[in-house]
Amino acid sequence: MTSGLWITLEGGDGSGKTTQAELLTERLRADGRTVVRTREPGGSEVGQLIRDIVLHHRGDIAPRAEALLYAADRAHHVATVVRPALARGEVVLQDRYLDSSVAYQGAGRVLDATEVRELSLWAAEGALPDLTVLLDLDPTTARERLDSADKPFDRLEAEREEFHARVRGAYLALAAAEPGRFLVVDAAQPPATIAERIHERVATLVQTHELR
Amino acid sequence: MTSGLWITLEGGDGSGKTTQAELLTERLRADGRTVVRTREPGGSEVGQLIRDIVLHHRGDIAPRAEALLYAADRAHHVATVVRPALARGEVVLQDRYLDSSVAYQGAGRVLDATEVRELSLWAAEGALPDLTVLLDLDPTTARERLDSADKPFDRLEAEREEFHARVRGAYLALAAAEPGRFLVVDAAQPPATIAERIHERVATLVQTHELR
Repeated sequence: MTSGLWITLEGGDGSGKTTQAELLTERLRADGRTVVRTREPGGSEVGQLIRDIVLHHRGDIAPRAEALLYAADRAHHVATVVRPALARGEVVLQDRYLDSSVAYQGAGRVLDATEVRELSLWAAEGALPDLTVLLDLDPTTARERLDSADKPFDRLEAEREEFHARVRGAYLALAAAEPGRFLVVDAAQPPATIAERIHERVATLVQTHELR
Repeated sequence: MTSGLWITLEGGDGSGKTTQAELLTERLRADGRTVVRTREPGGSEVGQLIRDIVLHHRGDIAPRAEALLYAADRAHHVATVVRPALARGEVVLQDRYLDSSVAYQGAGRVLDATEVRELSLWAAEGALPDLTVLLDLDPTTARERLDSADKPFDRLEAEREEFHARVRGAYLALAAAEPGRFLVVDAAQPPATIAERIHERVATLVQTHELR
């Protein structure tokens, strides 16, 4: 869509998205690129307010309301953060995007995955990343990592293992449906090994973009 | 959809929706009906948080994000307030519903009215009121009423007269498209006259519902 490069990181909690985002940012900055680190939900000021509602509200939120709140965050974030950065030619490195909505709300909950995806695409006016890195981890390992981190669970993290297994399946199906956009990495590997794999793919993409 | 009765009030700010809601509530309670007074946005606890964002956030909200926030409020409100009350056989008397979204966001802003309506219907799983009362007032009179009320304008109220004229036109078009659902009343009439007109129509609806 522009001269910048848009990379999203996907995967369950505990799959190492934050670590990989930090490692990739370092590498890209060393290569002289300007990197915008961002996330959904909560990647904008309005998004922070929305994130507080969806992740920390006490009491149930109706499933369609939850999907619409994530989509609202997305609409504002893409319009005010992602698109302007890409237009400046920067690298946008983003923790979670519409694949999270489809995997968590669509496959994991009571909503139709196709509807959730369409809602997200309407919100973002059709914008899709140049690359989506899926850090794939079996749910049991993911839970062990979170437990050992000894931090309080938020509303989504408290859902059961079974839910996480469904989410993982949904993620893998999304990756299989769009092999050109996705890079699936086994997140049980050492962080440095994963980082190398991601950087190789990103380097290829950067070259392709510069040749445009 | 149920044994209850769902009435929504529509119209620009200053058209007298609150006054008419109070008068109708009195009449219906005198008739022995249980009335739930509610509103969108902000008719639920989650909705109050969303209402704070859309009406009082400093700084622009992307148009699609705004539409999605209203839809999120709607989804939660219909699922947790409106449907349960109707299932109990009560009268739900609601200040603003999807016609507000279509008139304000669709016709008044940059979004497509059909898309905004579809978004609302998805949020509410297709639920439409038994009766929608449109309090129709020319924008100049509406502005005079608000000015004399000497209260601070919120974000939407501060929009220009021209915007309100477009909203009025959109409302009238919606009423013309669904004459069975809408009752259009000239809001420049005395409140008691308007109340009488609305109560007549509601009384007929109540009878029809009891005969089902």
